[in-house]
Amino acid sequence: MTITEVCNLLRANDNFEILTHASPDGDTLGCGHALCLALQQIGKNARVICESVPEKFAYLKKGIKQQEFIGEYIVSTDIAADSLLGEHGKKYEGKIDLCIDHHKSNSVSAKNKYVDPDSAAACEIIYEVVKGLGAEISTDIANCLYTGTATDTGCFKFSNTTAKTHRIAADLIEAGCDFNGINKAMFDTKTKARMALEHALYDTMEYFSGGKGAVICVSLEMMKKLNITSDDIEGVEAIPRAIEGVEMGITVKEKEGGFCKISVRTNGELDASRFCAEFGGGGHFAAAGCSIDGDCQKVKKTIIKAAEEFI
Amino acid sequence: MTITEVCNLLRANDNFEILTHASPDGDTLGCGHALCLALQQIGKNARVICESVPEKFAYLKKGIKQQEFIGEYIVSTDIAADSLLGEHGKKYEGKIDLCIDHHKSNSVSAKNKYVDPDSAAACEIIYEVVKGLGAEISTDIANCLYTGTATDTGCFKFSNTTAKTHRIAADLIEAGCDFNGINKAMFDTKTKARMALEHALYDTMEYFSGGKGAVICVSLEMMKKLNITSDDIEGVEAIPRAIEGVEMGITVKEKEGGFCKISVRTNGELDASRFCAEFGGGGHFAAAGCSIDGDCQKVKKTIIKAAEEFI
Repeated sequence: MTITEVCNLLRANDNFEILTHASPDGDTLGCGHALCLALQQIGKNARVICESVPEKFAYLKKGIKQQEFIGEYIVSTDIAADSLLGEHGKKYEGKIDLCIDHHKSNSVSAKNKYVDPDSAAACEIIYEVVKGLGAEISTDIANCLYTGTATDTGCFKFSNTTAKTHRIAADLIEAGCDFNGINKAMFDTKTKARMALEHALYDTMEYFSGGKGAVICVSLEMMKKLNITSDDIEGVEAIPRAIEGVEMGITVKEKEGGFCKISVRTNGELDASRFCAEFGGGGHFAAAGCSIDGDCQKVKKTIIKAAEEFI
Repeated sequence: MTITEVCNLLRANDNFEILTHASPDGDTLGCGHALCLALQQIGKNARVICESVPEKFAYLKKGIKQQEFIGEYIVSTDIAADSLLGEHGKKYEGKIDLCIDHHKSNSVSAKNKYVDPDSAAACEIIYEVVKGLGAEISTDIANCLYTGTATDTGCFKFSNTTAKTHRIAADLIEAGCDFNGINKAMFDTKTKARMALEHALYDTMEYFSGGKGAVICVSLEMMKKLNITSDDIEGVEAIPRAIEGVEMGITVKEKEGGFCKISVRTNGELDASRFCAEFGGGGHFAAAGCSIDGDCQKVKKTIIKAAEEFI
């Protein structure tokens, strides 16, 4: 399918329900709301279906009209597999008319599919669709599209970023998006619980192999005591590897049931996947994981010993 | 002056010495090395004059030929005032032939000046100059220009970022710059000393006014014990304000001589400058500072009390 064909399908239909994936992130919410705004702008009925919009993404709903209609045409955005439809989207399984996504592995059952794995964010595709529909990139649409583009690329830092990503960002800035406010909220704001968690994690940090390795531990006790949510804990695996000189950063997360999940991140030459295979795990060269029985303290000792030998 | 006139001057001269500012950052070093590479590419002699290139910027020197010549034409890049020439550049004071900069306040004494305050980074100007000279944006030049552009905009997060900044970044990515590696080194790497400092700072963190205020303290003892350099401490003022719900973030830095420097950063409605004026200080609406006599503990109490009343 081409963008033109996608736009033709959208023009030919009405009463859209736009699906976003479970545990919604900036990209799926940005896609859903931008497409909804564009469809309403060209005179269609449309609504976004989502699990719940986290408070920090509430601004994406700005400008969307609440319309009364019976859904007729189902579009999924940034959803890679039927299993990611979540509880709220389950009833649409097998009934999706158009799937728009950027995941190479996309396996959604849909009548029509536009999947472009070269897009860093699915919002890049929606940007083309909005333009193809002849809708104006309003400030509200620009805010939605910028949010998805920035969050899926770590604010243009990750290797998935392309020249096209930057050119789209340029257009969105010219359309008046509040990139400074969005970036502040997305990247430069930490909850008090997150701050407390990082503080506690730093207490557990241990270097080994002369500083080439670093490990942090998230204990069950810590999670309960600090009232940590899954949002607060997101991305902590990046902390040990980000330290200068560290080639292997390990995060030990204690789980209910007497075991720990281990995340291994490496820089340079070390194969995280081969290391995790020693414990029956696996993954990619620079990011892999495994599980080990025992409490936090015991597992930390085991993993440090193995990592020292590996390095 | 126009970019064309800048290029004409560069074409008409030879044996360039390109100055960078004291305590060099990514923008001045990116400018200096990119311009040097471009001038050498079009057959000129050129060298970069700088205090010292910090280890993390060593890659910027790649591709530069060491040439023997007597300096004839002096260009300053990203230098806002003669005082910023530093020890290494002092002898060039009053002898600068061409000053290229983006600081509105530029006061450098120079025969010719091209100052564009609308450029987020001085590297944006050098990008135009390199193109104007007819030089190819080689991978090495692209790495230099990307470094300056990314570091001066906080990786496209800060409000100084423009559509043009993104379009230049797009061109630099197409020219093959290693944006992922550069961003990792610039934004996602912390020294072990910095980690230890953040840990110690979290120990000192105190909330007040029901979480609308947060304060951290850098004591002299902490600095000595952890062997903290000025590089390690850079940007810690951003920590308290980055906490969700905090409207006033305060950093107390103990100094030799029995006093503390206070940095105040605010979100929203609070005027940091008016608050600091209470202690004889000043600054901007969202970022201001002052000094208060006393040790860290005493000053922390004083400032919290004043801030509670202010909020």
